[in-house]
Amino acid sequence: MLSQRATHFADAPAFLNAAGKAFADPYDAHTNPNGYINLGVAENVLPQQLLVEKFSQIRAKVAVDPVDFRYGDFCGSLPLRKALAKLFSSKIFHTPVDPNHFRVTNGAGSCIEMLSACICDEDECIMMPTPIYHGLENDLNRRFKSILLPFPMKLVPLEGLEYRFDLDFDALNTVYEQSIKQGKIIRGLLNINPSNPFGTIFEEDQITQLMDWCLERNLHFISDEIYALSIFPSSNTPFVSAIQILEKKNWKQKELIHIVYSFSKDFALNGVRAGVLYSQNEQLLTAFSVCGYFTGVSFDTQTLLASMLQDDTFVDHFLKVNCELLEEVAVKSETLLKQHQVPFVKAQSGMFIFMNLLALSPKQNKTEDDEKRLWLQLLDDKKVYVTPGFVFKSPIPGWYRFCISCTPFEIIEMALKKCVEAATEFQ
Amino acid sequence: MLSQRATHFADAPAFLNAAGKAFADPYDAHTNPNGYINLGVAENVLPQQLLVEKFSQIRAKVAVDPVDFRYGDFCGSLPLRKALAKLFSSKIFHTPVDPNHFRVTNGAGSCIEMLSACICDEDECIMMPTPIYHGLENDLNRRFKSILLPFPMKLVPLEGLEYRFDLDFDALNTVYEQSIKQGKIIRGLLNINPSNPFGTIFEEDQITQLMDWCLERNLHFISDEIYALSIFPSSNTPFVSAIQILEKKNWKQKELIHIVYSFSKDFALNGVRAGVLYSQNEQLLTAFSVCGYFTGVSFDTQTLLASMLQDDTFVDHFLKVNCELLEEVAVKSETLLKQHQVPFVKAQSGMFIFMNLLALSPKQNKTEDDEKRLWLQLLDDKKVYVTPGFVFKSPIPGWYRFCISCTPFEIIEMALKKCVEAATEFQ
Repeated sequence: MLSQRATHFADAPAFLNAAGKAFADPYDAHTNPNGYINLGVAENVLPQQLLVEKFSQIRAKVAVDPVDFRYGDFCGSLPLRKALAKLFSSKIFHTPVDPNHFRVTNGAGSCIEMLSACICDEDECIMMPTPIYHGLENDLNRRFKSILLPFPMKLVPLEGLEYRFDLDFDALNTVYEQSIKQGKIIRGLLNINPSNPFGTIFEEDQITQLMDWCLERNLHFISDEIYALSIFPSSNTPFVSAIQILEKKNWKQKELIHIVYSFSKDFALNGVRAGVLYSQNEQLLTAFSVCGYFTGVSFDTQTLLASMLQDDTFVDHFLKVNCELLEEVAVKSETLLKQHQVPFVKAQSGMFIFMNLLALSPKQNKTEDDEKRLWLQLLDDKKVYVTPGFVFKSPIPGWYRFCISCTPFEIIEMALKKCVEAATEFQ
Repeated sequence: MLSQRATHFADAPAFLNAAGKAFADPYDAHTNPNGYINLGVAENVLPQQLLVEKFSQIRAKVAVDPVDFRYGDFCGSLPLRKALAKLFSSKIFHTPVDPNHFRVTNGAGSCIEMLSACICDEDECIMMPTPIYHGLENDLNRRFKSILLPFPMKLVPLEGLEYRFDLDFDALNTVYEQSIKQGKIIRGLLNINPSNPFGTIFEEDQITQLMDWCLERNLHFISDEIYALSIFPSSNTPFVSAIQILEKKNWKQKELIHIVYSFSKDFALNGVRAGVLYSQNEQLLTAFSVCGYFTGVSFDTQTLLASMLQDDTFVDHFLKVNCELLEEVAVKSETLLKQHQVPFVKAQSGMFIFMNLLALSPKQNKTEDDEKRLWLQLLDDKKVYVTPGFVFKSPIPGWYRFCISCTPFEIIEMALKKCVEAATEFQ
């Protein structure tokens, strides 16, 4: 009785169905000790107390304004876009920013959906280095049927158990050329920096090379920078935004560079559903404005977010504390992994540890099927939900992403130990 | 450089461009007496003080809850859906309501966009009686390319200057049969009850007949009931929801009946961007859930709305006062129109007066072109922005919708007098 596309709309991705179990029966030490520990979702509860205090203070000080009951600019109130311009110019782009180059949407997912639909027609492709955040395929394809075209990153051993995934320009060229030969239409490339799922920061020269590669081919370059302000204090790789590189290189094709941001990660506010596009592409900005009626954010929430950002002292303190808290759980997690001989990607930012849990298994010739079976064992036998590499389109089997900021560390520790146990016994 | 569809996304409808002028330079008696008086937007400022008090009270009483910082059900928090179930069962459907049959979206427009995309594939049609709210074509067509198929209502003279637009089943049958012959695929019919642009309430037997007509043909019936609780105290036509009729008739095709609601109108909260779907169609509900990531509403706002709805005393008082205030401005407006011999539709609810302003012109054989010219004169010479009949796909030229709740009545009165003057002189 519904449309053909509704069948596709209703067809939940596999990871959502698995996550459903974990969401429906969450672990609680006191009330539900047999529930699921859910480390599959990119959430950060560590700085919540600071946010509770700040929001309570704003509510006590900022009177309810009937302007927020009315229609406003569907792409973001001017106070919020001005506050974003200040944040971006001082902390992310390090260059003056025009508030009119922002569009605020109900979440970064909604922003990427709209952005990819504006760049691609149906069946056209956006390249992405993989492993990469698994929600992107849903954003591109669910309603607007654009295609995620993966090109594999290469695994680089560092010291001991530490690894890193690096951009592989040979793989990029190979996939690009083969795809063109197959008649695929490629319109852009999306990269997440700092990375999800790794928490690594890309070197400036790598991003410069990637952007240059795109611009030479007239491809759009989308830089998802939603972890830009979640850098660990001891990280020795500086984060450099694609906009900084654009300015430095003085490329003329400004209209091909787009930044996606969000309050969900750096500000630990998944629940406010507020994402941000930054672009200097006038036609794209117009498309977002005309369609803004479908991606609007509550003005009450926008006022709250603008008030928060206007307080420089709070923002500085919050970001500093949050980055310290994130590094603290990363260091603790790494220590545990080292104790148990689990290979992992050394993170420099963010909320994740990406680890080769399957390496613990005595099984020979490990496959993606093994990775899936272990994942389901962790879920069903150990009641721990993590995100397996295959959903990130990982080229190498055996890796899993653990979110380590979504619950107190004693629970992370307990879950990690259960997973190590399962992996060690896995055949 | 962008996709073909982006060109369509960026192509603002004409009424939006005209409204742009009015939005950019709004009238203010003190600060901008030469600005535009904007009566084109469906806003209600009349009960704002009650909302300011209630929201201030909620903020003082309800502590900031870090649960709202986290991901939740993208289709509406359970407290909000429970509060909606209570509201609907007691005041709109008058039958028990399951909270799981609701989906909350970022605005009713976003809800109708998603709903129509689930009912229609590209180029498939939803019929609507016209004149009808001009935003619907944008909702259907902008991003998902479904088609609004209008069938004209008939104008019925009442007493004196009073008129009414009625459903015309002959026109419905004619348009339906002709369209089928032309190869059009019709998937549903949408009606707004109480009406936008008229403010009239459809008789129960008319809606029953319309629903029956749809179900006989296996068409979806969408009832937009966003003005259900904005009925004037003295209205002598009771509002009857499509769900009440469904229950009474005991039709088996429950999966074809869908209700759209919103906080924007009855609760005068356009700014919260919160729309609601009610449906018993499981596949449709699943499609909304899977795509809910793209239509999510800030959980902070959801908590605020749920808290408001949980207070029965407030809700009862607010709705009573709001309906009284709406009728008061309608009565005052009608008195003015009668003084100036302007034919109008007698409203029984809502925020609008739909009037035949062009009737005042001495010009013979009035056309849609005349309607457009007068509209632009009102905008450019009188600096009053109203909504002309042609954007509602009115079958009869000369009518205009005035929103009479969007600003204090002395400004409505001033604008009406300017418009009467322009129309009287119009050649």
